[in-house]
Amino acid sequence: MRALRKAGPGPGLELVEVPIPTPGAGEVLVQVAAASICGTDLHIYEWNAWAEKRIHPPVIPGHEVAGHVVATGREVHHIQPAAFVSAEGHVFCGFCPQCRRGRMHTCERMRILGVDFDGGFAEYVVLPERNAWEVDRRIPPDIASIHDPFGNAVHTAFISGGADDIVGSTVVVLGCGPIGLFAVGVVRAAGARQVVAVEPNEFRQGLAKQMGADVVVDPAHEDAVEAVRAATDGHGAEVVLEMSGVPPVIRQATEMICAGGRIALLGLPTEPVSLELTDHVIFKEARIFGVTGRELFTTWETVSNLLASGTVDVTPVITHRFALEDFELAFEAMDSGRSGKVILLPNGA
Amino acid sequence: MRALRKAGPGPGLELVEVPIPTPGAGEVLVQVAAASICGTDLHIYEWNAWAEKRIHPPVIPGHEVAGHVVATGREVHHIQPAAFVSAEGHVFCGFCPQCRRGRMHTCERMRILGVDFDGGFAEYVVLPERNAWEVDRRIPPDIASIHDPFGNAVHTAFISGGADDIVGSTVVVLGCGPIGLFAVGVVRAAGARQVVAVEPNEFRQGLAKQMGADVVVDPAHEDAVEAVRAATDGHGAEVVLEMSGVPPVIRQATEMICAGGRIALLGLPTEPVSLELTDHVIFKEARIFGVTGRELFTTWETVSNLLASGTVDVTPVITHRFALEDFELAFEAMDSGRSGKVILLPNGA
Amino acid sequence: MRALRKAGPGPGLELVEVPIPTPGAGEVLVQVAAASICGTDLHIYEWNAWAEKRIHPPVIPGHEVAGHVVATGREVHHIQPAAFVSAEGHVFCGFCPQCRRGRMHTCERMRILGVDFDGGFAEYVVLPERNAWEVDRRIPPDIASIHDPFGNAVHTAFISGGADDIVGSTVVVLGCGPIGLFAVGVVRAAGARQVVAVEPNEFRQGLAKQMGADVVVDPAHEDAVEAVRAATDGHGAEVVLEMSGVPPVIRQATEMICAGGRIALLGLPTEPVSLELTDHVIFKEARIFGVTGRELFTTWETVSNLLASGTVDVTPVITHRFALEDFELAFEAMDSGRSGKVILLPNGA
Amino acid sequence: MRALRKAGPGPGLELVEVPIPTPGAGEVLVQVAAASICGTDLHIYEWNAWAEKRIHPPVIPGHEVAGHVVATGREVHHIQPAAFVSAEGHVFCGFCPQCRRGRMHTCERMRILGVDFDGGFAEYVVLPERNAWEVDRRIPPDIASIHDPFGNAVHTAFISGGADDIVGSTVVVLGCGPIGLFAVGVVRAAGARQVVAVEPNEFRQGLAKQMGADVVVDPAHEDAVEAVRAATDGHGAEVVLEMSGVPPVIRQATEMICAGGRIALLGLPTEPVSLELTDHVIFKEARIFGVTGRELFTTWETVSNLLASGTVDVTPVITHRFALEDFELAFEAMDSGRSGKVILLPNGA
Repeated sequence: MRALRKAGPGPGLELVEVPIPTPGAGEVLVQVAAASICGTDLHIYEWNAWAEKRIHPPVIPGHEVAGHVVATGREVHHIQPAAFVSAEGHVFCGFCPQCRRGRMHTCERMRILGVDFDGGFAEYVVLPERNAWEVDRRIPPDIASIHDPFGNAVHTAFISGGADDIVGSTVVVLGCGPIGLFAVGVVRAAGARQVVAVEPNEFRQGLAKQMGADVVVDPAHEDAVEAVRAATDGHGAEVVLEMSGVPPVIRQATEMICAGGRIALLGLPTEPVSLELTDHVIFKEARIFGVTGRELFTTWETVSNLLASGTVDVTPVITHRFALEDFELAFEAMDSGRSGKVILLPNGA
Repeated sequence: MRALRKAGPGPGLELVEVPIPTPGAGEVLVQVAAASICGTDLHIYEWNAWAEKRIHPPVIPGHEVAGHVVATGREVHHIQPAAFVSAEGHVFCGFCPQCRRGRMHTCERMRILGVDFDGGFAEYVVLPERNAWEVDRRIPPDIASIHDPFGNAVHTAFISGGADDIVGSTVVVLGCGPIGLFAVGVVRAAGARQVVAVEPNEFRQGLAKQMGADVVVDPAHEDAVEAVRAATDGHGAEVVLEMSGVPPVIRQATEMICAGGRIALLGLPTEPVSLELTDHVIFKEARIFGVTGRELFTTWETVSNLLASGTVDVTPVITHRFALEDFELAFEAMDSGRSGKVILLPNGA
Repeated sequence: MRALRKAGPGPGLELVEVPIPTPGAGEVLVQVAAASICGTDLHIYEWNAWAEKRIHPPVIPGHEVAGHVVATGREVHHIQPAAFVSAEGHVFCGFCPQCRRGRMHTCERMRILGVDFDGGFAEYVVLPERNAWEVDRRIPPDIASIHDPFGNAVHTAFISGGADDIVGSTVVVLGCGPIGLFAVGVVRAAGARQVVAVEPNEFRQGLAKQMGADVVVDPAHEDAVEAVRAATDGHGAEVVLEMSGVPPVIRQATEMICAGGRIALLGLPTEPVSLELTDHVIFKEARIFGVTGRELFTTWETVSNLLASGTVDVTPVITHRFALEDFELAFEAMDSGRSGKVILLPNGA
Repeated sequence: MRALRKAGPGPGLELVEVPIPTPGAGEVLVQVAAASICGTDLHIYEWNAWAEKRIHPPVIPGHEVAGHVVATGREVHHIQPAAFVSAEGHVFCGFCPQCRRGRMHTCERMRILGVDFDGGFAEYVVLPERNAWEVDRRIPPDIASIHDPFGNAVHTAFISGGADDIVGSTVVVLGCGPIGLFAVGVVRAAGARQVVAVEPNEFRQGLAKQMGADVVVDPAHEDAVEAVRAATDGHGAEVVLEMSGVPPVIRQATEMICAGGRIALLGLPTEPVSLELTDHVIFKEARIFGVTGRELFTTWETVSNLLASGTVDVTPVITHRFALEDFELAFEAMDSGRSGKVILLPNGA
């Protein structure tokens, strides 16, 4: 089969011909219909400091994958050949304390598809049966492939019973990369009274509007904290979803949250963040939630239901589709600042 | 001023001329812009068994009231004259254990506007300051007057952190009187994947569709439990909002709920209800919540935000408007089976 | 090995010699150190109507089992030989909607140890690896074997965030069989202000006191609803844990609950239960939770922690221990009304 | 009456004779039986930077007050003369958005007893009726006077449904001033599996043991993060209650929390705190809650129930009692490092 492989340390990927992998016990073989490119894949492609430390070539990247099951290994009892599935890339052990608590997405022995073992930028990929989420056939492959990042948005929005915070509230989304854009659509669908999106990139500002943002703030021209106060009679927002990972923006999250409000942190800062806890967190009784991945598999159920029913329409965010061999154009689009989600179609459109 | 008064035991109301009441300590005087007729008011009008026991004439009914503050009594420190307000009709003590727990809507010494003391089917009404909820001026008077029953719908939908049950779920509304119709709109706005409305009255079936129901079941022609199973691959609905108070319908609520699902009971059965608890509640781990009134004032905040922002549009439900003197036509409309919400306009349109 | 087997329809069990079973893929072989007798086992032993319908002999009963792993099948990657484990008897599929929601204890394809396949009234038993819960070695085998019913008590007490209802509250336990007795200990340890136990059997009344009940009500001599009202200044209890399954007692649960209170139903009524929903559930905004089994595996973690640390001491409830061959005496003790938990020791004390 | 008054800017207090105050509308006059000294009072006494900015002399400090109602003003309808009450010092408006949400303890127009108006270091004090919490007469005056700081401990422990985090868990209390010591007792009573107290002061280490700490860590001799890891098989604690306000200790809170764990921040840092959010909050999905004051009045109910029933015994923490005229000795004891709670008795023992 054809696959994109990181052959050794350094930038780039190679289009190679490799054998179709064989599913082991409890595993299924999936013919990839669509594989979406994540920021993580771009890090691997560009070989940044994180990738250098984390990735051990050779490996095929790609973890946002959807396709059809074409073969099953021993001890596979539930997923049937021909099933249409989307991949949960977090392969968990099921036995560590986190897994036993139902928090498999923070498994202490986590292995990640396309990072720790071969992923889905290829014609075929092997997944553990339980990491294959059956998708409603009404959902087209490209949308099936973005269940993972859409799930990040859903999990961030609703973490810890958070839907109740959103109904009738002002929700701010800080940073409108694809996950932020999905989050705008999710909180709009969940009954937010107004959605404020903060994003410096003009192309993405436009997408945020298309996804349902009522107010779009360009932080280059306007103070985001002031803009949120102005939109809320000075009280601040009930919910802030932090998708940027930029330390001063995280600090702003604490400044724009109202008393009793909730901040969910999904963006990953690469350095320590200094916060004025007394005034902006303690006296306000703000709540701050770290967020990673998505819940297995309650988030997936919500994702599929929101997408299959059309409750959230993500089509504006999917801006580019490429054949596997055009991967260089695809990564260029990813990096252009004029894209939403970029999809590879390893078996053709 | 002109007012509709229940002069003594027996059916009907009288249009009378009475003095404008004077606000006491902690009270405000409101000029009534709109007063919506509740089912309770119809009971008082028709003088059913409940009314005979509960009402001590003479009294002016009407508790779903909106208008402008025109005078304030002593010890009123927050509401200003000219404020536009909607009435919370539950007058609570603030000191019993329920009030101290923040559950003022189940106050042990509750007194009810238009039931225990003079209400708002009149040109003016007196309210405790803290029962006057300031309404966004973007909201017209008739919509301001239905904050109370819309609040019932919101509280039923979201009781006990219930918004998380609704996002991406199948929600059934049993009984589409005005509160049920509002509930259809609320859960649609809160991200339900599909809304199933069950209602025998054809006129209200049409309103349910207008409010956003995906499936409308006529229980005269179709088994509601089977219809819900069919709409959910046999699993049952995640949420059932019971608005009918009819014992066999309440039993059906337990039959159509999925394992782990939530039933909220707002309709008031007048006789004991027999339930198969083992199969339909215990083995399923169903959750049943009694619901009464609305939370003071978290529900009100959600109500105002959903209505002022247009997140829920209730205009299809408001079907009739009458001048105070045409109250007999208004109650006739209420009883006709071809109405949603019927509004009196004591000071003209 | 020696085992107690239900050979065919009808009362009793036979002590038989059968081959030691072989663990399959994903399974472990456990040498049984202690097996506790559940009410379900008594039904199987006595062959009541439920057993006649549900049990397909031949089968070895027993699902409350603890012991040491002595062999592992293929695809077992986490549990090591010599591990000390307690059995979760609910064997779930992991793939149905309930399992995917993390509600494996209400799996739609559930198979039960000692009911649907051979259980632990034997020297050895085979379990799926993931149903083997590793137990702190500080816990002796008899206490390890009651993790399952103690888990019922913990899950009933704390269902749906229920620990917050208990701290500082009045908690009533209706019915003090072993699970009710465990529940008394659990809510006492969780900071209840007072624990009221209702139980007609004098022997169990004594055990309830030993487990920490402040008030023990004999319903033969005292009205339980009145007793709870008297103990709560007339307000009712914040939490009622229903362990009896007796319809009039379930009705009393709704009468003794305070406004806003929580009822958890674990006891299984064998006929419909008639409830006055309007006065006792709806106007009070009572919350009713069906409860079955225990959560996999959050409840198990709490169970182990409470027992290993000595936070709850269950030794008063374990009243009898028997060798496997003395099973008839053991079932006699179970049925005597003068026992708590009765334990079989298939491999000697 | 005799009172301790801050006459003007600068350290110290004066014992003065002033008229007994008169309760206004909605207010009650309380004869002070016991007034406990808070850290805030010490700041006022010593006239630190905060006090210089916040306090406008002349004012009588003291907000942790208990006593008997001896007179009531107009519009007081619930509290009767002779009632035994403890003061909630946060005087809230009841009408701002925070109050309307039931979050009166974060009222936007908050006025504080003994800070913004005359408090309880005096023979008599005036309180709004609704700030007077009726106390069970089984509770002695000194324990009644510490309802406020004990309420801080209860609110911190249980914030946002937190009792469920505590049952069966490892709970760390960082800083064992009086509130930290109360917190140790509270989480011990709420079913923690082990309580770890971190405190440099040897005298308070001893009190922490008396209050039920299983492990007491002296941070001068032992790394607190390592100590918590050692006590939890390397996983970290499920709950950390931060009572110190010291920035490096707050950072340690994030290092010692387990994945999915909860940190509650009550201590007030006086400078920004730098946190490694990615590793210690986001990847772990830690939850951080700011905490201030206590909930009105759900926390008070829990407080009274835990203290009146003896579920928590706080007597070890109350180390000193003084007559009003011995206030200099009292503040000296407060500052000595060898005290728990120091109580003034303005009307004699």
